[in-house]
Amino acid sequence: MAEGKGFWNRILHVDLSQGNIRVESPGEVFFRTYIGGGCLGAYYLLKYAPPGCDPLSGENVLVLAPSVATGSPVPGTGRHSAVAKSPLTGGIAASEAGGYWGMELKRAGFDAVVITGRAEYPVYLWITDGRCEIRDARPYWGKETGEVQELIREELGDGLIQVLLIGPAGEKGVRFANLASGTKNFHGRGGLGAVMGAKNLKAVAVRGHQEVRFADKEGLIALARDFAQHFRENANLSTLSEYGTAGYVLPQNEVGGLPTRNFQSGSFEGAEAISGERLKETYLIGQEGCYACPVRCKRVVASEEPYRVDPLYGGPEYETLAALGSYLGIDDLGAIIKMNELCNRYGLDSISLGGALAWAMECVEKGIIDRAEVGMDLVFGSAEAAMAMVEKIVAREGFGDILAEGAWRAARRYGKKALDLVVHAKGQEFPAHEPRLKRSLALAYATVPKGADHCSSEHDVAIAPDASDAIFQAISPLGILERLPLTSLNAPKVRFYYITQQMFSLYDTLAICLFVCPPIRYFSFDQLVELVNAATGWNTSLLELFWVGERKTNLCRAFNAREGIDAASEALPPRMYEPLRGGPTDGLRVDREEFEKAMALYFEMAGWTPKGVPTRGKLEALGLGWVAEELKQTRAL
Amino acid sequence: MAEGKGFWNRILHVDLSQGNIRVESPGEVFFRTYIGGGCLGAYYLLKYAPPGCDPLSGENVLVLAPSVATGSPVPGTGRHSAVAKSPLTGGIAASEAGGYWGMELKRAGFDAVVITGRAEYPVYLWITDGRCEIRDARPYWGKETGEVQELIREELGDGLIQVLLIGPAGEKGVRFANLASGTKNFHGRGGLGAVMGAKNLKAVAVRGHQEVRFADKEGLIALARDFAQHFRENANLSTLSEYGTAGYVLPQNEVGGLPTRNFQSGSFEGAEAISGERLKETYLIGQEGCYACPVRCKRVVASEEPYRVDPLYGGPEYETLAALGSYLGIDDLGAIIKMNELCNRYGLDSISLGGALAWAMECVEKGIIDRAEVGMDLVFGSAEAAMAMVEKIVAREGFGDILAEGAWRAARRYGKKALDLVVHAKGQEFPAHEPRLKRSLALAYATVPKGADHCSSEHDVAIAPDASDAIFQAISPLGILERLPLTSLNAPKVRFYYITQQMFSLYDTLAICLFVCPPIRYFSFDQLVELVNAATGWNTSLLELFWVGERKTNLCRAFNAREGIDAASEALPPRMYEPLRGGPTDGLRVDREEFEKAMALYFEMAGWTPKGVPTRGKLEALGLGWVAEELKQTRAL
Repeated sequence: MAEGKGFWNRILHVDLSQGNIRVESPGEVFFRTYIGGGCLGAYYLLKYAPPGCDPLSGENVLVLAPSVATGSPVPGTGRHSAVAKSPLTGGIAASEAGGYWGMELKRAGFDAVVITGRAEYPVYLWITDGRCEIRDARPYWGKETGEVQELIREELGDGLIQVLLIGPAGEKGVRFANLASGTKNFHGRGGLGAVMGAKNLKAVAVRGHQEVRFADKEGLIALARDFAQHFRENANLSTLSEYGTAGYVLPQNEVGGLPTRNFQSGSFEGAEAISGERLKETYLIGQEGCYACPVRCKRVVASEEPYRVDPLYGGPEYETLAALGSYLGIDDLGAIIKMNELCNRYGLDSISLGGALAWAMECVEKGIIDRAEVGMDLVFGSAEAAMAMVEKIVAREGFGDILAEGAWRAARRYGKKALDLVVHAKGQEFPAHEPRLKRSLALAYATVPKGADHCSSEHDVAIAPDASDAIFQAISPLGILERLPLTSLNAPKVRFYYITQQMFSLYDTLAICLFVCPPIRYFSFDQLVELVNAATGWNTSLLELFWVGERKTNLCRAFNAREGIDAASEALPPRMYEPLRGGPTDGLRVDREEFEKAMALYFEMAGWTPKGVPTRGKLEALGLGWVAEELKQTRAL
Repeated sequence: MAEGKGFWNRILHVDLSQGNIRVESPGEVFFRTYIGGGCLGAYYLLKYAPPGCDPLSGENVLVLAPSVATGSPVPGTGRHSAVAKSPLTGGIAASEAGGYWGMELKRAGFDAVVITGRAEYPVYLWITDGRCEIRDARPYWGKETGEVQELIREELGDGLIQVLLIGPAGEKGVRFANLASGTKNFHGRGGLGAVMGAKNLKAVAVRGHQEVRFADKEGLIALARDFAQHFRENANLSTLSEYGTAGYVLPQNEVGGLPTRNFQSGSFEGAEAISGERLKETYLIGQEGCYACPVRCKRVVASEEPYRVDPLYGGPEYETLAALGSYLGIDDLGAIIKMNELCNRYGLDSISLGGALAWAMECVEKGIIDRAEVGMDLVFGSAEAAMAMVEKIVAREGFGDILAEGAWRAARRYGKKALDLVVHAKGQEFPAHEPRLKRSLALAYATVPKGADHCSSEHDVAIAPDASDAIFQAISPLGILERLPLTSLNAPKVRFYYITQQMFSLYDTLAICLFVCPPIRYFSFDQLVELVNAATGWNTSLLELFWVGERKTNLCRAFNAREGIDAASEALPPRMYEPLRGGPTDGLRVDREEFEKAMALYFEMAGWTPKGVPTRGKLEALGLGWVAEELKQTRAL
């Protein structure tokens, strides 16, 4: 079947067990239906992964997918998704990373890579200009990300090769091992690194020389030019450019939303010391960005003392500063950037790492876990112990071996008191946005298919009473016309979450950075539609694109339901019903009854059963009748 | 509260019982939420009409509403909706009419009129430039529409006054009396004329001199100019301009879709004789149109012999040619245009009239109803008897008094055999599109809240295998990417119906003519969005507008549910399960199991209970939490 505009109509299928490689051409309707990224990934996961498969086995399916917009000059499109069954949650893992890998894959003539099976020994994939090769990676096994990237480039003789790869953490099956896109961009969450490790797959190297054909190149250039000329007029983007997401530390702390000491408080006395502003004055040596994006929000840091930090591994995001800083009561910025570097070297998700360490610290302090067992003084504020524990996790030694399973699995060894202190949803540690303050996140963290996640819906601030008129107007094409307090979780707030979740689901499907997306940042919804049409030549609409987003959400939920994960597994941790302590949010907590009502309402709004499983009607409305059949066969519906 | 762009923020409330008049200013969010037309009408009906009210009493509420687009120079916007509880179905009646009345109301400074109560004696409303007066209509009671329009204009001294009014049929409570907008445009269906009659309200006369303020007048003019210059390039519109809807007779007959002899066949041997082509050669003397529309699809006919036909009353639409022609086996065009004129003079819905007569004819022929009781030889083909019966219905004499109740109520007197021959849904006689051929209409006729209706969703032809690429491409912004045979009623066809129903629901809310709307006719979905934004200055989207349409559908369904009308009342008549006889559709029938499965799926798709009642989740998703409360209080949910 012929190639289209914005897509090659070439899906690369690699079976590592058999060593088979084939190319599928599913046709234009397929691409208009699933588009790419998370939606396309969820499609193949549901189709190919056998029900109940072990995520750390060859039966798991790993999908790597940019979208029809990738390769365009439009800022924000330099991303791609990675999708598989998560070893951390047992449900779907769908995680996006920036950088250049997605663009390079498109230029290599493929729309996505679907990887099944398990190689007999460590291998890597080499994809270039319409071809794919499975190559020996035994020399690279056990090595750190930066080194392997360099070695592969040397081996293949091209310094511009983009490498997606895992570090030792992924090889060792650390359940929160990440998947690195180069050394500065990461599919952080859900343990995708461990999935690759279990497949004996060290890396996917790509290099392409084919220009992606778009329907309206001039239109795309116009969008890019408009962005480049004006993005600084958007306050959020200019801050992002200046401080990276690290700039969020102080504002979050100011409103009492900076999770501190395992979410006991929303205020951290050391916030100033770990802020983006402080970072700029101290360790910052540069900034980097993704393909085609002038914002360059990524930090690059370096240090010689007291810790040697290699700038190859970028610098910390807000999430990392919080997770390895305020979560742990650590205000030593030098130590935090070192731990960030270690995460990126070894291939660890810094959020889950921080969540797991914070949980352990509280358990140790409360005597639930014996210090002797831990083998070091793992308490709030101790950067030294935290850093030593990172090494133990990756080495899977002693208590580190236990923590490598993630906080939730670790806690199960220590009984109810320990379990109650895990701040997680579906086994995934909370990110650094406080659901007791931004209340729609309580619903999001509990119900997002991939587990607690802060990038799956718009935050409550967009429609808060003090939100700017510009943002409030920008969100109105979604039919959201009412301002609501941050802490409300009434029906209109549930609606706000339901609607924006589908849009964020779309962003992940387009593999477009949410930092350029409406309503808060640069592009308008009209421009988003324009982007897709200019790339593909379709005459799509916000309506059709909303349904694409909803399609992704429903595919993910259907996958989870099939794997036995439904409403029964979707709860908030006890901490969310406890009041925050100190600072501006002192006393704030989630009301259990309000939350449960909101969850039931959300399910009904979304067209799901009371257990949160998509109904046949909803699936057929999205053109996903085959999914209803799948659910029926596995008795999930 | 201040006026907006495209709306005055002035809803006129008239209580005929008390003689009270007041103006409400519900604000911009209200207008963006409900927009106008059918959606705004359903809102006020649900709010103001007491549950279980007698539609032929002062408790019923009649809402007359143009929209935020009315008064603009854009073709197709010269319409308005009338909404009330239907005396024919017991559910909601929501019917649109073209002409000039809606535009005139806007120019008089009002966005809608909400009429409650019942006047002590016949009155009419006189609305002009921000004022409203209740005036004596006793001199006009009993008079025909054309005469009253003239007399009111004379009384008020302005020949340009637009008059909405009823004829003797409405006064006499004929359950399918229509509501006339002038003498050539009609709110045909649902018995709205009888609602006005029961309120002792003969007419609503309007005249305005205030220019409606729009946000982007240039943008509106550009849309209008584009249409005027190019509409003839659209084959459907040029045919419409040349033959009116009368041009559909032959094509419908050709495919076996022209309902004949009470829907026993889809082929009429007299089709040629009652066609638009024949009409053009014989009685046609001109064409007319609605405000701002160059298509001028309305026929004007005249005749001296054998029947004197006054051109004041326009000419027949396709529906009338079929209902008073092929339904009855009548091929006498002169008689048909005379009966059409009588309908418009007396204020009768020609479709229900035809349906009722066709039913009676079959009953007489089959001996179910005694000829003696009928008092004339009311059999297929007898134009003379049909015409005589029209007089009897309006006079409510003899068998005419029985037929004035509509076919379904009439049939209840004669037992099951008679009832089985009524081709209706919810008591409303079928329009002239054959659900056994265009199978989605089976679902539509059965489930549309206002009863059997052919203007509530796109017909199957738009996505048929032989539909033009242009139309198929035009519908794709709705995410409809698959062609389907006319007679399929599988899940994708149900989805097609569900989606296009919401769009048609939107058209009725914008009070825009579906003859200019996508996907079949001139404007694209983008232009539709543009129209709303140019009128109002909003930044709405197809997504938000789809939800407005869905809001209207759900308000209507909620009203019906409250009135005890749900899935249990939504059935196809037995005839649909019988095969068509003769012609290209010989043997075609609806499969009962397939239909029932489709209906259940449709309800689930739409977010309704198995009884077809909107769930709280769906209502809250549409920002209609108050409706869920209403349904809960009346135990409908």
